[in-house]
Amino acid sequence: MPTLRDLGEFEAIRRLVRARGPEDPDVLLGPGDDAALLRPHPGEALAVTVDAFVEGRHWLPAWLSPRGVGARLAAANLSDLAAMAARPRWALLSFGLRADHDADALLELQGGVVEALAPFRAAIVGGNLAGVEGAEWVSLTLVGGVAEARAWTRSGARPGDLLAVTGRPGRAGAGLALARALGPARRAEIASELLDAWLQPVPRVAFALALAPAGAVTAAVDVSDGVAADLERLCEASGTGATLEAEAWPADDALEGAAQDLGVPVDALRFAPSDDYELLLAVDPAGRAACERAARETGAPLAFVGRFTDAPGVIVERGPDGRERALAGAGWDHFAR
Amino acid sequence: MPTLRDLGEFEAIRRLVRARGPEDPDVLLGPGDDAALLRPHPGEALAVTVDAFVEGRHWLPAWLSPRGVGARLAAANLSDLAAMAARPRWALLSFGLRADHDADALLELQGGVVEALAPFRAAIVGGNLAGVEGAEWVSLTLVGGVAEARAWTRSGARPGDLLAVTGRPGRAGAGLALARALGPARRAEIASELLDAWLQPVPRVAFALALAPAGAVTAAVDVSDGVAADLERLCEASGTGATLEAEAWPADDALEGAAQDLGVPVDALRFAPSDDYELLLAVDPAGRAACERAARETGAPLAFVGRFTDAPGVIVERGPDGRERALAGAGWDHFAR
Repeated sequence: MPTLRDLGEFEAIRRLVRARGPEDPDVLLGPGDDAALLRPHPGEALAVTVDAFVEGRHWLPAWLSPRGVGARLAAANLSDLAAMAARPRWALLSFGLRADHDADALLELQGGVVEALAPFRAAIVGGNLAGVEGAEWVSLTLVGGVAEARAWTRSGARPGDLLAVTGRPGRAGAGLALARALGPARRAEIASELLDAWLQPVPRVAFALALAPAGAVTAAVDVSDGVAADLERLCEASGTGATLEAEAWPADDALEGAAQDLGVPVDALRFAPSDDYELLLAVDPAGRAACERAARETGAPLAFVGRFTDAPGVIVERGPDGRERALAGAGWDHFAR
Repeated sequence: MPTLRDLGEFEAIRRLVRARGPEDPDVLLGPGDDAALLRPHPGEALAVTVDAFVEGRHWLPAWLSPRGVGARLAAANLSDLAAMAARPRWALLSFGLRADHDADALLELQGGVVEALAPFRAAIVGGNLAGVEGAEWVSLTLVGGVAEARAWTRSGARPGDLLAVTGRPGRAGAGLALARALGPARRAEIASELLDAWLQPVPRVAFALALAPAGAVTAAVDVSDGVAADLERLCEASGTGATLEAEAWPADDALEGAAQDLGVPVDALRFAPSDDYELLLAVDPAGRAACERAARETGAPLAFVGRFTDAPGVIVERGPDGRERALAGAGWDHFAR
C-alpha cells in the first residue's frame, strides 16, 4: 500500500489516469495534455456544475469507504445535472491530499466516481492533484449536455402546476441525525433505508432523461438542502407559492421510526435540511401520466404532493383537517455550524 | 469587514455572484440554478482544465494579496488554455474556506480571477463554497473554445521544427528561491522582474490566439514545471528530441543576478523547476515570421532557442564551444517536498 509520497505525484497521476473509465469518441484529447479537448454534440447546450467534499465535514472515514466518498460526491453533482435534465458527459477531479495518503485508497475514491458515471458513459477527462497538510478535499466539476429547449430550470413553474417529488426526502437528514446521535459503533440500530439515503444517495438522472422529452416538467430543483429550502428556491425563481397536501405523502416507516427515535414530528424530518439528491418538479397537469410512466420505467419512486399557487413565496401544508400551516425546516449554512 | 460566519453561506454566495463579471449572451443560465447552462460555438471543441491552490503551499499571505491569489490561479489555468490555443470562455470556482474568512477578502480573491478573465470576456458561471477548519484552498475549472483543427497539442512536433519560447523562463523559480532565502522583510532586495514572474505571471493567451490561425505551431506546452521538465513532456508526446543553443537565449540581467546571488549557473535557473506560465512551441520553419509577428502584435517576448531532432527523448544544449550536454533541472513533485 504505497503512499503518494512513495509513488511521487507523476506516478500517482499515471495510475489515476489509467483507471479513468470508458473510451469516448468525443474526447479528442484526454488527460496528459495541457487541457482536455472535448467535442460537444451539435446544437446541445452544456450544463456545468461543481461540488466539493471536505474530510471531516462531508465524509467521515468511520462511515464511508474511499469508494463511497467518490460515489457520494459524484451523486451530488449528478443530481444537479438531473435537475437540469442534462446527460452527464465529462468530469474533472481536483484533489487536495496529504503525502501519506494511501495510493490504493485514492484509486478507490476515483473508482467510486468512475462507477457512478459509468451508466451514462461519462468519463473523467482531467484533474489536479495538490498536496495539503490538514483535512483532505475533493472537488468535482461535471459537464453535461442538454438540448437548449429541453433543459429544466427553477423558474418555469406556474400556478396550477402539480408538485411532484422523487424518492423519500428527509431520509438522508434523518440518517445523519441518528448517526450523530448514536455513533458508528451503533450503526446497526439505524434503519438501512436512512443510512443508505445519507451515504449512498441515488441521483435521479435516468428518470430525468426519460422524462425530459415529454415536455411535462415546467421547473425542477434537486433536494440538496431539504424540501423546505429547495422548494422555496424554486418558488422564488418562478414567482409562485405552493400548497402541499399532508395526506399525499406515501407512508415512510423508516422516517416515522426516526421521528420517534429523535422525538420530533415526521414532517420536521421530511422538510428539514437533508441532502437527499431527490428531485422536486413542477409538472403541467396534462403531463402527470408521462411522469408516472418515466418513474415506472426507471424505478424512481414518485409522488404528487401538492400544487403551485399564485401567492409568491407562500409555502404551506394543508393538514387532514383542511387547515394550512407553514412548512417546518430551513436550509444548511456551511459557516453557521 | 464581515466574516463568512457573519454573512452566512447564502449571503456570501449572493455577493460573489453579483460580482462575477461580464454578461455573455452564451450564458443561458448563470449561477443560481442547479447548473449553469452554456452555449458553445457551433463546431468548436471545448478545452477544459482545472487547477487548485492551497494556502501555505501555492500562496503565502505575506507575499500575495487575496486579489493576487485569484489572479495567479487564473493565470495558471489561462496558461493551459493558451497552450491549446483555446479562447477562455467560462470558469467555475470551488472554495474551501474558514468561517472566519473575511468576506471582502473573498470578493477580492474572486475579483482577481474576474479581472484576469475580463480581457477575453470570459465569465465565472458557477462555483461552490465549502467550509474548512485548516488551510484554505481554491480550485478553478476553466472552459475554453477552439476550432478542432486549430488546437495545439503536445504531440505534433517534428524533427527540424524550431523550438520557440515566450518570455524569460526560470524567472519565477528564481523569484521563489530568493523569496525563500530572504523572507518577506527583505522583499525590496529581489529584482521586480523575478518577483513579478513568480507572483504575477502573464499567461500568453493573446499571443496564442493571434498565432493559432497561421497554422505555424506543430506542438505546444506551457511551462508550469520548468523548461527541462515541460520540454521533456512535449518531446515524449511527439517522439522527438531537442537541441537547444546556449547562445540563442536573450540576455536576462535579472536571472543572471539571481544566479549570482544564489551561487548557481544561470542555466540551472533557466531550465529548473519554475512555474513561469510561458509557452514552449514547436514551429514549422516556414512559420517563423508569423510567430514573430504575433509576438510583436501582442507584446510577448519570443526567442527561437533550438530545434527538434529525431533522437527521441534526447534533450541537449549546445554550448558556445559546440559541445552538447544534458539539460539541468527536473520537475516539481507535490508530494516529495
